[in-house]
Amino acid sequence: MADWTDCLNFGISIAKQASEVGVMATNENAVKLKSSPADLVTETDQRVEKILISAIRNRYPQHRFIGEESVAAGEHLELTDSPTWIIDPIDGTVNFVHRFPFVAISIAFTVNRQTQFGIVYSCVEDKLFYAQRGGGAFLNGEPLHASGQQGDITRVTSHMCYITHDIMSRDDVALSTMTSNIRRLLQFPVHGVRALGTAAVDMCQVATGGADAYYHIGMHCWDIAASAIIVQEAGGVVMDTDGSEFDMMSRRVIAASSAAVADRIAQVIQAFPCCRDDEDNCGCGATGVN
Amino acid sequence: MADWTDCLNFGISIAKQASEVGVMATNENAVKLKSSPADLVTETDQRVEKILISAIRNRYPQHRFIGEESVAAGEHLELTDSPTWIIDPIDGTVNFVHRFPFVAISIAFTVNRQTQFGIVYSCVEDKLFYAQRGGGAFLNGEPLHASGQQGDITRVTSHMCYITHDIMSRDDVALSTMTSNIRRLLQFPVHGVRALGTAAVDMCQVATGGADAYYHIGMHCWDIAASAIIVQEAGGVVMDTDGSEFDMMSRRVIAASSAAVADRIAQVIQAFPCCRDDEDNCGCGATGVN
Repeated sequence: MADWTDCLNFGISIAKQASEVGVMATNENAVKLKSSPADLVTETDQRVEKILISAIRNRYPQHRFIGEESVAAGEHLELTDSPTWIIDPIDGTVNFVHRFPFVAISIAFTVNRQTQFGIVYSCVEDKLFYAQRGGGAFLNGEPLHASGQQGDITRVTSHMCYITHDIMSRDDVALSTMTSNIRRLLQFPVHGVRALGTAAVDMCQVATGGADAYYHIGMHCWDIAASAIIVQEAGGVVMDTDGSEFDMMSRRVIAASSAAVADRIAQVIQAFPCCRDDEDNCGCGATGVN
Repeated sequence: MADWTDCLNFGISIAKQASEVGVMATNENAVKLKSSPADLVTETDQRVEKILISAIRNRYPQHRFIGEESVAAGEHLELTDSPTWIIDPIDGTVNFVHRFPFVAISIAFTVNRQTQFGIVYSCVEDKLFYAQRGGGAFLNGEPLHASGQQGDITRVTSHMCYITHDIMSRDDVALSTMTSNIRRLLQFPVHGVRALGTAAVDMCQVATGGADAYYHIGMHCWDIAASAIIVQEAGGVVMDTDGSEFDMMSRRVIAASSAAVADRIAQVIQAFPCCRDDEDNCGCGATGVN
């Protein structure tokens, strides 16, 4: 089996380099609206993605890419068996524009459609989360462990702390679904709901044990591919919101401290319709890429 | 007019000292349930409050105190004209117990029932927010400015970023009210909802300009008295959720970048019943202190 450690180390080094550009570039005058007010794109996003892809292409000319900004610019999104870098140049663009201090560079790397490693660099906090398949998960070099919370309803669930994330879509069905999901979750004896505003960093909180669960509907593969392996390698579980196997293209994810907690959330979460990431026109009315 | 700068500086120094105890005391085996799963109290809370009050009493023996843990232990809560320190030893206890990295020490100081200064020390982040009446607001020594967002509906509201905070109460009325409030707010063209899990630090985000608004129903005076003056001194606005003048005992607050944004939120927010902090038995069914 190939060892992708060199790629991981290279990914970490370019994430840190690109962060200097992303975090330092604080004069954001050119904020353009994308599909909704919550989904901003800035020139910095685009610049950071170009820096990352250019550096990787120079070192690994045979590798492929799925990047948020490239896809937004019209590139077809297809995950193949080739070594592929899945990149979100700034996860938390809304935070970035508002100077809310949580933004991350998220990089996942797949071979034969299986994630080999994931890197989430929370730039303002200077926190580097990463994991390699079979090698454990780390935060700034220290091993990460999910809380192991099992969700036993008689006692342990009263110590569960859920984390979630606001949705991008603002149509009526999505809003109703989201608020009723939150309501049902809060009827568990949970301690609270948190939202830092970046899917990648929010999800990594499950890997740290600081949160017991995270769910999101409507995000994209580049938002959560890296965090998913970080959660798994920390001993956590990822699955689809319908309880089936995690599929980074489905735009639905639950990450949790244990299968028991993930199953419990899957039982109460309702999804709203959104196209798969790798499906251009599914006919559901929502866009595959927004 | 008396100058309370010495008290402010003393408050800052003891907040930092007490933080070392609060943040360093990471072996939390003695977590006891308070009134709901979301409202935990730990031995560390109690220890930090004792350290703070003991140090202040030693230096200012005539001053009075309102402290979360003292009130929880049965002390009568009454704000008088005397110089009074209002203390939350660990705002974000749930975060603290779960190692979710946002906890703060919050200290406000009133004379003649008017807040003279506020200190919010976000311990894990090492961020010191503070403000003195008429002297501006600061974060680690740098001046703070609210975003100034006016909330003009034709354009500027599309750049508004709201922040909120999960509620402590989990009864059915409170849950329904909270989720319908969130839903109505998201129907504005807002960018997102964030929740770090400490009222004090969440509210200070409005002072930084990172968020345009914050609201909370059901918190206590020690959660928000310090942040309120920090927001005001940064150029922001605080008011009651019903649009009336801010009253730290009412357990309802909106903090916003401008009066226009605060008014707009007041129009859509519905409150659920909860007793005032300074009212022992109002008959509403909710407890004055929980």
